[in-house]
Amino acid sequence: MENLNLSQINWEALLIDAGLILLKLAAIYFAFLIVKSAGNKIIHKSFEGIGRKERISPGRSKTLQSLAKNIFSYVLIFIFAVTILQIFGIKATAILAGAGVIGLAVGFGAQGLVSDVVTGFFILLERQIDVGDYVTTGSYSGIVEQIGLKTTQIRGFDGTLHYIPNREITSLSNHSRGNMRALVDIGISYDDNIDEAITVLQETCDKIAEVNQAIVEGPNVIGVQTLGSSDVVLRIIAKTENMEQWAVERQLRKALKEALEANGIEIPFPHQVLIQKQAGSESAAG
Amino acid sequence: MENLNLSQINWEALLIDAGLILLKLAAIYFAFLIVKSAGNKIIHKSFEGIGRKERISPGRSKTLQSLAKNIFSYVLIFIFAVTILQIFGIKATAILAGAGVIGLAVGFGAQGLVSDVVTGFFILLERQIDVGDYVTTGSYSGIVEQIGLKTTQIRGFDGTLHYIPNREITSLSNHSRGNMRALVDIGISYDDNIDEAITVLQETCDKIAEVNQAIVEGPNVIGVQTLGSSDVVLRIIAKTENMEQWAVERQLRKALKEALEANGIEIPFPHQVLIQKQAGSESAAG
Amino acid sequence: MENLNLSQINWEALLIDAGLILLKLAAIYFAFLIVKSAGNKIIHKSFEGIGRKERISPGRSKTLQSLAKNIFSYVLIFIFAVTILQIFGIKATAILAGAGVIGLAVGFGAQGLVSDVVTGFFILLERQIDVGDYVTTGSYSGIVEQIGLKTTQIRGFDGTLHYIPNREITSLSNHSRGNMRALVDIGISYDDNIDEAITVLQETCDKIAEVNQAIVEGPNVIGVQTLGSSDVVLRIIAKTENMEQWAVERQLRKALKEALEANGIEIPFPHQVLIQKQAGSESAAG
Amino acid sequence: MENLNLSQINWEALLIDAGLILLKLAAIYFAFLIVKSAGNKIIHKSFEGIGRKERISPGRSKTLQSLAKNIFSYVLIFIFAVTILQIFGIKATAILAGAGVIGLAVGFGAQGLVSDVVTGFFILLERQIDVGDYVTTGSYSGIVEQIGLKTTQIRGFDGTLHYIPNREITSLSNHSRGNMRALVDIGISYDDNIDEAITVLQETCDKIAEVNQAIVEGPNVIGVQTLGSSDVVLRIIAKTENMEQWAVERQLRKALKEALEANGIEIPFPHQVLIQKQAGSESAAG
Amino acid sequence: MENLNLSQINWEALLIDAGLILLKLAAIYFAFLIVKSAGNKIIHKSFEGIGRKERISPGRSKTLQSLAKNIFSYVLIFIFAVTILQIFGIKATAILAGAGVIGLAVGFGAQGLVSDVVTGFFILLERQIDVGDYVTTGSYSGIVEQIGLKTTQIRGFDGTLHYIPNREITSLSNHSRGNMRALVDIGISYDDNIDEAITVLQETCDKIAEVNQAIVEGPNVIGVQTLGSSDVVLRIIAKTENMEQWAVERQLRKALKEALEANGIEIPFPHQVLIQKQAGSESAAG
Amino acid sequence: MENLNLSQINWEALLIDAGLILLKLAAIYFAFLIVKSAGNKIIHKSFEGIGRKERISPGRSKTLQSLAKNIFSYVLIFIFAVTILQIFGIKATAILAGAGVIGLAVGFGAQGLVSDVVTGFFILLERQIDVGDYVTTGSYSGIVEQIGLKTTQIRGFDGTLHYIPNREITSLSNHSRGNMRALVDIGISYDDNIDEAITVLQETCDKIAEVNQAIVEGPNVIGVQTLGSSDVVLRIIAKTENMEQWAVERQLRKALKEALEANGIEIPFPHQVLIQKQAGSESAAG
Amino acid sequence: MENLNLSQINWEALLIDAGLILLKLAAIYFAFLIVKSAGNKIIHKSFEGIGRKERISPGRSKTLQSLAKNIFSYVLIFIFAVTILQIFGIKATAILAGAGVIGLAVGFGAQGLVSDVVTGFFILLERQIDVGDYVTTGSYSGIVEQIGLKTTQIRGFDGTLHYIPNREITSLSNHSRGNMRALVDIGISYDDNIDEAITVLQETCDKIAEVNQAIVEGPNVIGVQTLGSSDVVLRIIAKTENMEQWAVERQLRKALKEALEANGIEIPFPHQVLIQKQAGSESAAG
Repeated sequence: MENLNLSQINWEALLIDAGLILLKLAAIYFAFLIVKSAGNKIIHKSFEGIGRKERISPGRSKTLQSLAKNIFSYVLIFIFAVTILQIFGIKATAILAGAGVIGLAVGFGAQGLVSDVVTGFFILLERQIDVGDYVTTGSYSGIVEQIGLKTTQIRGFDGTLHYIPNREITSLSNHSRGNMRALVDIGISYDDNIDEAITVLQETCDKIAEVNQAIVEGPNVIGVQTLGSSDVVLRIIAKTENMEQWAVERQLRKALKEALEANGIEIPFPHQVLIQKQAGSESAAG
Repeated sequence: MENLNLSQINWEALLIDAGLILLKLAAIYFAFLIVKSAGNKIIHKSFEGIGRKERISPGRSKTLQSLAKNIFSYVLIFIFAVTILQIFGIKATAILAGAGVIGLAVGFGAQGLVSDVVTGFFILLERQIDVGDYVTTGSYSGIVEQIGLKTTQIRGFDGTLHYIPNREITSLSNHSRGNMRALVDIGISYDDNIDEAITVLQETCDKIAEVNQAIVEGPNVIGVQTLGSSDVVLRIIAKTENMEQWAVERQLRKALKEALEANGIEIPFPHQVLIQKQAGSESAAG
Repeated sequence: MENLNLSQINWEALLIDAGLILLKLAAIYFAFLIVKSAGNKIIHKSFEGIGRKERISPGRSKTLQSLAKNIFSYVLIFIFAVTILQIFGIKATAILAGAGVIGLAVGFGAQGLVSDVVTGFFILLERQIDVGDYVTTGSYSGIVEQIGLKTTQIRGFDGTLHYIPNREITSLSNHSRGNMRALVDIGISYDDNIDEAITVLQETCDKIAEVNQAIVEGPNVIGVQTLGSSDVVLRIIAKTENMEQWAVERQLRKALKEALEANGIEIPFPHQVLIQKQAGSESAAG
Repeated sequence: MENLNLSQINWEALLIDAGLILLKLAAIYFAFLIVKSAGNKIIHKSFEGIGRKERISPGRSKTLQSLAKNIFSYVLIFIFAVTILQIFGIKATAILAGAGVIGLAVGFGAQGLVSDVVTGFFILLERQIDVGDYVTTGSYSGIVEQIGLKTTQIRGFDGTLHYIPNREITSLSNHSRGNMRALVDIGISYDDNIDEAITVLQETCDKIAEVNQAIVEGPNVIGVQTLGSSDVVLRIIAKTENMEQWAVERQLRKALKEALEANGIEIPFPHQVLIQKQAGSESAAG
Repeated sequence: MENLNLSQINWEALLIDAGLILLKLAAIYFAFLIVKSAGNKIIHKSFEGIGRKERISPGRSKTLQSLAKNIFSYVLIFIFAVTILQIFGIKATAILAGAGVIGLAVGFGAQGLVSDVVTGFFILLERQIDVGDYVTTGSYSGIVEQIGLKTTQIRGFDGTLHYIPNREITSLSNHSRGNMRALVDIGISYDDNIDEAITVLQETCDKIAEVNQAIVEGPNVIGVQTLGSSDVVLRIIAKTENMEQWAVERQLRKALKEALEANGIEIPFPHQVLIQKQAGSESAAG
Repeated sequence: MENLNLSQINWEALLIDAGLILLKLAAIYFAFLIVKSAGNKIIHKSFEGIGRKERISPGRSKTLQSLAKNIFSYVLIFIFAVTILQIFGIKATAILAGAGVIGLAVGFGAQGLVSDVVTGFFILLERQIDVGDYVTTGSYSGIVEQIGLKTTQIRGFDGTLHYIPNREITSLSNHSRGNMRALVDIGISYDDNIDEAITVLQETCDKIAEVNQAIVEGPNVIGVQTLGSSDVVLRIIAKTENMEQWAVERQLRKALKEALEANGIEIPFPHQVLIQKQAGSESAAG
Repeated sequence: MENLNLSQINWEALLIDAGLILLKLAAIYFAFLIVKSAGNKIIHKSFEGIGRKERISPGRSKTLQSLAKNIFSYVLIFIFAVTILQIFGIKATAILAGAGVIGLAVGFGAQGLVSDVVTGFFILLERQIDVGDYVTTGSYSGIVEQIGLKTTQIRGFDGTLHYIPNREITSLSNHSRGNMRALVDIGISYDDNIDEAITVLQETCDKIAEVNQAIVEGPNVIGVQTLGSSDVVLRIIAKTENMEQWAVERQLRKALKEALEANGIEIPFPHQVLIQKQAGSESAAG
């Protein structure tokens, strides 16, 4: 930086240097592209082979494969970056070990990165999520698409792809780890007999349970959940196979509504008791 | 990193080395699998033996067993990782003691891990939770499935499995540490006599208390909780055996509603007093 | 860690060593159990003795006893842990004084622990809470069950046991430090005379004050608190003995409602003035 | 810790030592009790003397007295603790100056303590609060009972005693620093004449102002605050003596309601215009 | 602390020393009182002199005066404290420079103090507020009473005095820096002609603008702000002199309501279209 | 501070020193005032010259001018402060380089300052805002009045001047960077034909687009946005010139409402279907 | 700073120096402008060339181009700043390496900058966003306009340009990464047959699917989503091409509403059951 005096610069030599550097950069870039595509194919093949032989679930296999590619791409990029820095005559080790303001700044920058990698490592080690799981973390919900060293990708049900740095995943809810509960609340009139309504609802539930293979347990009418302002709310719960809970709930809602209707039990609208007062009495308020 | 010049690499030797390393890796991986399954069986047997002899509650026994397996698996993975690093010629101690940017970064990463382990250690030491307890921590509720060194697993009532890093468990509410309260609020009409209603409700409560073994104390009508906008709200509370509170509440709601109905006491809908005004007077507003 | 080469391990010696260690562990564990139960009994007896002689409130006595047991158990566990570490040939002092990554990590872990102990110490020193007090801290409310060096246990009114690390107790509201206020808001109609209503309510209050011993001051009708949308709200406040505020409020609500009814003063439902408009005029809106 | 080997301990000497230590502890404890009660009496007497001679407000005097006792008790406890540590052969200075993990941990613990003392010092120096003031800080409101070096005690109006560490008092609202405002919003009908209503309300206000000595300024009708959905809201404000604002507001509400009634000005209920549509036209919606 | 052995203390010498110290303390305290009152008077006089000669706004003059007194009082207290410490033989410099746990703790305590002074310094330098300004910062609003080195005092409109540490003043809204906007939203019926209503409202606005000197610009009807559920909302805005915005808004509301009434334009109540259905058809719902 | 013994002070010499210092202060203060006003004029003239010659937008020119004055005033104040410190014999460099408690404290204080300047620097460098732009940052909205090194001033639409430290400006929304969208939602009756309504609305939009020069694109009826509880909501959007969006929205609302009215398409009030039930049946509820 | 004594300054030499410096500054400024415009053109051309040859998506190409310009402009500004500092005789390296208060402060300032660059680097490396993508991050939504090293610019749909420092982008939702879901909820009457309604809705869906090319899957009626208080809610979902989801939803809403109408299936208004009570019975409430 001491010799930034513009007139002293040897422009020709500089242009030749720039040309050489560009050639080197191009060569390295193509090498990088070839190694990357070759590496990805090898990883893909290896996992196909392993997938067939050993007893690894398809979700786990996909997880490991996407992770392997992710690590491979980071290693490549790291080598790529170091090589380029060397072309410009900068030693990476010198930067990493460099003290002073720059070293400190890089250290702070690296902090987030390390946090991501450590958290990601334990998520994988404890098998908290696999590719294809339906998970919720923070305010993001969806199907896991990729678990990387630094970032986890979750596909929301509306099609959005959420990129979540692993360090942001503190607590994690996995909805694909066993049977799920279907829950339907249905309100009947205060005038109707509760026992009769329960009988009707339970019979319908039993019929559905016979037909629907996705139901593991129940559905059962468990009783009066709330004495609402206009209705007596009965709760029905069932245990279903994973991801089948919503379909079962929809089936239950339709069948139970039709069963109550068929048996003359009312699902009441909001009620209100009105008391008429003469406008004359109202003038007394003023 | 100084010799990354691509043309200098001896490709044959590299392939042979790679082959040897792969062989070693495979051997270590199988050893790891065998030791893991054997270890888990030994832990399981030991706890069965201890469970029979000593006076340890089943929940505590499960907790300790799941913890023992968890620690065992981490120790194995640590040995596994160190062995693999040695194959690649990297000394783990050198990394852990390594100063500079990497050491600092690892230190920051380890911070979260240590926080998890220390918190987990005190949760276990103070017996705050056991496997099978119904707990709430932060926004997560459910039955504890596993207490690990780093992560606690809670199964929500809808079937979701929550993975919570121990450091996220600051305050913890355990709903399985003694009898629980059942609470029912029931609104009667402003026209009805309060004393009469209390008598009817209390009689019903007493009948239920005789029949239901899960009720430890009460249920008792404790009085007028609120003078609502349309009803006089009476509160009934009872003490029940753990996890039986919801069933008792449901039973109470059904029985009390039927008792009031049988005695002609009204559970009122929302009320409103209407005052009719002529459209003529409304034109005066404009 | 340098000699992890699997083939070099002397398996027999290792097994004998393991056996000896297990024996030692068992011996120490039983010693630990005996000392613990003996110590707890001694603490219990001592406090019984002190409780009789000196003028310490029962709540304070329970607090100190539970604390003494808590400290005793931590000291025991610390000695227990150090002894076990010595069996494995690890010096605790070396760990505590150990610099590098591990020392730093332990330091961070200890930070939370020290914070807990210091906060707990001042809570006890300033007598902010005693066992049996009804307190609120953060979002947790209930009766204090145990005050430990590290954790305070609060039993919620629904039966839940809350474990709160002392460092989480920043501000603390103690509801068991003197008389409490009972507060009842009651709405009368805009048509009724306010003075008449106040007279009726105050007379009822005075009658209750004569009968109920838990009332320390009042209850008094202090005036018109709000001009509501449908009612004129009168406020009644009283001072009661500690924890009796809810019972007094319930008694007041019942008595005041019945007194108003007996004197023909209306507790009004929500009012609304309706203005009928012809559908013909409505077509003009579109 | 090096000689924790159980068999080497000389049990007799240990018991004698324990006995001596217990004796010393008892002696120190009684000395502590005597000095404490004597000191508190001296502080109390001194402040009575000062209070008579110098022009210090009673609130300030109580503040300084409670503070003096608080500091005195902390100094005593500190001396007490140091003496006890010496009995066990531990030098306090060594602990305070001790480096390593323990020193660091104590440093962190002390941080909160220093923060409390510094904040408390400036609250007292700037005379932000005195004992007896009605203050709000964070989510806590009430009368100040004690201002300590570490903790401030506020008595809520419902009787709860809030213990607030001084460091939690960031911003502070003192409601006892001058006259307060009484504010009443009253809605009149859209049909009524606004000028007439203002005249009626202002006359009532003037009458009250003559009678009530607690009113310093006003009350005045300042105009139309809102054009509500059913009423025209007029605002009345007054300046009252400290802590009299609520009583004045209640008096105003009652008097103004009665004045409007006497002059035939309506306080309207919520209004709604209804347009009847035939069920026939409704079938067109589906 | 080494010689705390109680029996070794020479009680007589100690009493004499204590007497001398008390005498010195009294002397310093009176000197402190005299210097303080003298200093405050000199500051007051100086500012009166400056205020007459130079062109400084009264608000700025008051700000500087209150600040000067505040700084003067802190300087005095500092000298006072250092003198007292010297009487007890403690050198302040030693404390401030003292390393170890105490130095560190004091450093942390000073941090908040420095933060207060630096923020306060820039608030004054950038003339963000003057005594008498109406400001909002965080959740506190009111008139600035005093700007100190450490704390700013804001008097809320209800009479409360808010003490806000300067460091808590991050963003600051000053409502006394130029003309303010008066804004009135008024709803007319869907049946009324919008152009006609705008003409009526604008005429009324123009009349007010002629009379009211506090209005700088407007008021103007700017158009249809919302198509509400029951009314068409028109917005009127004006620019008024500082602190006159509320009075102008009240005047506008009253005048505009009366103008609409006089011209037969309706301010509508909430509307609702009702469709009657027979109870017979309702039984079909159940 | 060592010679604070009051009797040793030479009062006369002290007074003379004080006089000399006051004279110096006055001289420096007047020099400061002259340089400041002269500097500001030079800056103003320079920017006028530049503004004429080069192609810089007026907003950018104002921004740079206000910034130049701001930097100039800070440099002056810095020189002023250093000079004054020298009069009192204090070297600024010594303070800045001073280690120990004071140096540390100043360092912490400076931290916020540096944060402000760095953020401000990048806001200016990236041309995120110019004087006159309408921006939103955090909870503050308005027109930018001044961008300083430390503080940005935003004038809210109600006339309030917000002072925002630059470090508080994390994310920033600039509403003056291109055309804006006008958006009107209008609800029609379920009985009306949607296609007909769209035709009517689109025709009105096209007429407005012809007349209003501020509309850049549209307005277009884009379709059924919501099936509301009482109406079918159609959305109209347009692209307008900057800051013209509100005027266009108001114009659209008025025109569209009148067009629908003219074509007999209803903007419906909230609807409700009522089912009459006899009071007799209601007694069954109780 | 030592020679700030005003009288010693050689004013003439100072003026000549100032003139020279201004000349240098002007020269450097023009050089800077020329290099900047030239560099930007070269970057633009290069990307046009690359865009034609290689298979890079247009979004990616724009991203890289805007980034290249951004980096280029920062490099230029850095060189520019260093050159100017040199003119004033200040060495940049000395500042960057400078210890003490200034070095520390710069270090803190740089921290945020490094955080921005590191986060930005990984966003680009992982291809989380491209120019033209529709993304949501924090509370900001819109189309990405520029991705810089330090700041990302997002254009909101209302025309606002959001400047977001990269470090503020923690989690990121990209709505342009594949097909999106269209979702319509439609409520039918409790009186209508659910199966019939589903048939009608599905037929309409199928017709739309045939015509609209943007629909990739569905739309399908998936069943009863809710049993509402006045209606049975049926849910329809479809998968559409990216960014076409809103248009499809609008089309579906219109077509489904018309289909239900044509088949006589009611979309019900809110329902309420009214029970008439005589004013006589109401007097009993009071």
